[in-house]
Amino acid sequence: MSGIPASGPTDSLQDVRGLRVGQAQRFGDGWLTGTTVILAGVPGAVAGVDVRGGGPGTRETDLLDPRNLVERVQAVVLSGGSAYGLSSADGVVRGLADDGLGLVVGPGQVVPIVPAAIIFDLGRGGEFRHHPGPELGLEAYARARQGDGPIAQGCVGAGTGAVAGGLKGGVGTASIQLAGGPTVGALAVVNAMGSTVDPATGLLWAAAGDPGLTAALQGAHPAPTEPIPVRAPGLNTTVGVVATDAPLTKAQCRKLAEAGQDGMARAIRPCHTMFDGDTVFGLSTADSGEATSPSELNDLLAAAADCFSRAVGHAVLAATSTTTPAGRWRSYRELHLPQPAGNSGIGD
Amino acid sequence: MSGIPASGPTDSLQDVRGLRVGQAQRFGDGWLTGTTVILAGVPGAVAGVDVRGGGPGTRETDLLDPRNLVERVQAVVLSGGSAYGLSSADGVVRGLADDGLGLVVGPGQVVPIVPAAIIFDLGRGGEFRHHPGPELGLEAYARARQGDGPIAQGCVGAGTGAVAGGLKGGVGTASIQLAGGPTVGALAVVNAMGSTVDPATGLLWAAAGDPGLTAALQGAHPAPTEPIPVRAPGLNTTVGVVATDAPLTKAQCRKLAEAGQDGMARAIRPCHTMFDGDTVFGLSTADSGEATSPSELNDLLAAAADCFSRAVGHAVLAATSTTTPAGRWRSYRELHLPQPAGNSGIGD
Repeated sequence: MSGIPASGPTDSLQDVRGLRVGQAQRFGDGWLTGTTVILAGVPGAVAGVDVRGGGPGTRETDLLDPRNLVERVQAVVLSGGSAYGLSSADGVVRGLADDGLGLVVGPGQVVPIVPAAIIFDLGRGGEFRHHPGPELGLEAYARARQGDGPIAQGCVGAGTGAVAGGLKGGVGTASIQLAGGPTVGALAVVNAMGSTVDPATGLLWAAAGDPGLTAALQGAHPAPTEPIPVRAPGLNTTVGVVATDAPLTKAQCRKLAEAGQDGMARAIRPCHTMFDGDTVFGLSTADSGEATSPSELNDLLAAAADCFSRAVGHAVLAATSTTTPAGRWRSYRELHLPQPAGNSGIGD
Repeated sequence: MSGIPASGPTDSLQDVRGLRVGQAQRFGDGWLTGTTVILAGVPGAVAGVDVRGGGPGTRETDLLDPRNLVERVQAVVLSGGSAYGLSSADGVVRGLADDGLGLVVGPGQVVPIVPAAIIFDLGRGGEFRHHPGPELGLEAYARARQGDGPIAQGCVGAGTGAVAGGLKGGVGTASIQLAGGPTVGALAVVNAMGSTVDPATGLLWAAAGDPGLTAALQGAHPAPTEPIPVRAPGLNTTVGVVATDAPLTKAQCRKLAEAGQDGMARAIRPCHTMFDGDTVFGLSTADSGEATSPSELNDLLAAAADCFSRAVGHAVLAATSTTTPAGRWRSYRELHLPQPAGNSGIGD
């Protein structure tokens, strides 16, 4: 592999065959949170996970250990709401079961396998206890099942209440089409203690080496950074997924997830702190095919790191300034990019 | 430490200062399942976990890694219902939050930390999808808060639908009072693929070296064992807790959990299979005190293994024969112990 790899057709996780994404959110009336569901096709995706932040909130991650039995998951849930938000996965479990999707344990009997990880966004809409629950999970699941339209980025789904280094965070996605055939995609929910911005230049860290992001940041400038109050541990966390349609084992999926964390390390500085719960899932949607060799895997890993970093960049670039009774979070776009001359909506 | 250590006053997990247990269950009308909540006092218990079965179903276990930040949990949930049953923990989270108990993240703002592990009992009451949910979790939590009465054993709480090696399983508990002061307690939900019975003698494996259990098994005899159909992976799992009031670090709590698994290995043969999800939590309820030295920890570990093994024995001994539309599971007591001469209820 040489040169700069091309993005997939939609430059999003949906370019990975078999994956669909659904998002649901609540804002206003004290709400500012949501849930993002990554739905794998039948028979599900082989999966691994890498938990590298010091304050994770997770569900059904132990079964992803390569030593353990269950190979495939039906969905991965990323959600706001901290530990309360893990309940959104219950709605996804219910939806999958109603659709007959899950680990088959008997005739007509399934147990849906739905790992989940949460971010902390409690109170950002004004009401501390307003968090995603089973209903919001089910709503996001239903949208994923429809699978219509491109993946929305910015302040949607699990990124609705996300904040990164004092700027508004959100959901971002990206994909890379490898020359040899397989596609790698990533989706990140960026809610970090660390910053996504190089204070010396005002550029996103994720833009380094990425022509697309570099072009999108033309005219970026430094801006005074606001101090980020760290009120208590666990008040951050970047979570996400890296996926490929190449056939991977569970252990290789874990390795893919680790590569995603490398991408996070480039795009968010610092990340993986004791006050983040940074968690990345690795998925392979192939249901057959020749085993992926270590050198083929190396190419996928490099793409996974690039993809996750770009997804972080896209999240912050797509986020919009947000004001609630609890506070105001300015967007990267507002703070660091040239502003349009007027508010008329007509190009200047 | 020498000789045979004494049981605590109630020979149960409640002998560990600060712990209370609440259980709730449903049976009849297609139901045969339940939930057991172990509630730690304020400020919660330091906790670790050892997941050693090949098919675990868990929640909030990643944060228990000794590298990670959160030190204390407010409760541990053990539940029937397989992956569906993880939702019972959401009810416990809600109950704790309503009572203001959890990780404090701001003034009046808490995030309850509630690790959970499930057993597979789906369909044993007749209806595959009848599983514990938030309501049952909340009911068990409310009972734990009251904290009244001894811990019921046998077919209660998470053990309501449990089966072990073809016999009826259930909940069991035990404690050991160490000469030096600290108490160790265990609670086990026995739902194993392997057997708790020595086929040569009809005695429980757990009775070896335990005078109390040995006395309770007087007259035990071998009985024809029924073949255990293994329909699909994940259809078993023994879960539980070992706890002490000695001050332990998170890493030491993890070690305590591992010792509990050693007790399981003695009492259930085989356990930790690819088709079990065997998970044990280790808890320390001390909120201050001198660090526990390696040699002191050794004594606690030995007691933890003994205690967990005894808890498994107590579970099987307390279980009662159970018939539902889905099947009949005979108890150890019915199959292996001398039966009373008549059904009059008057001693013979």
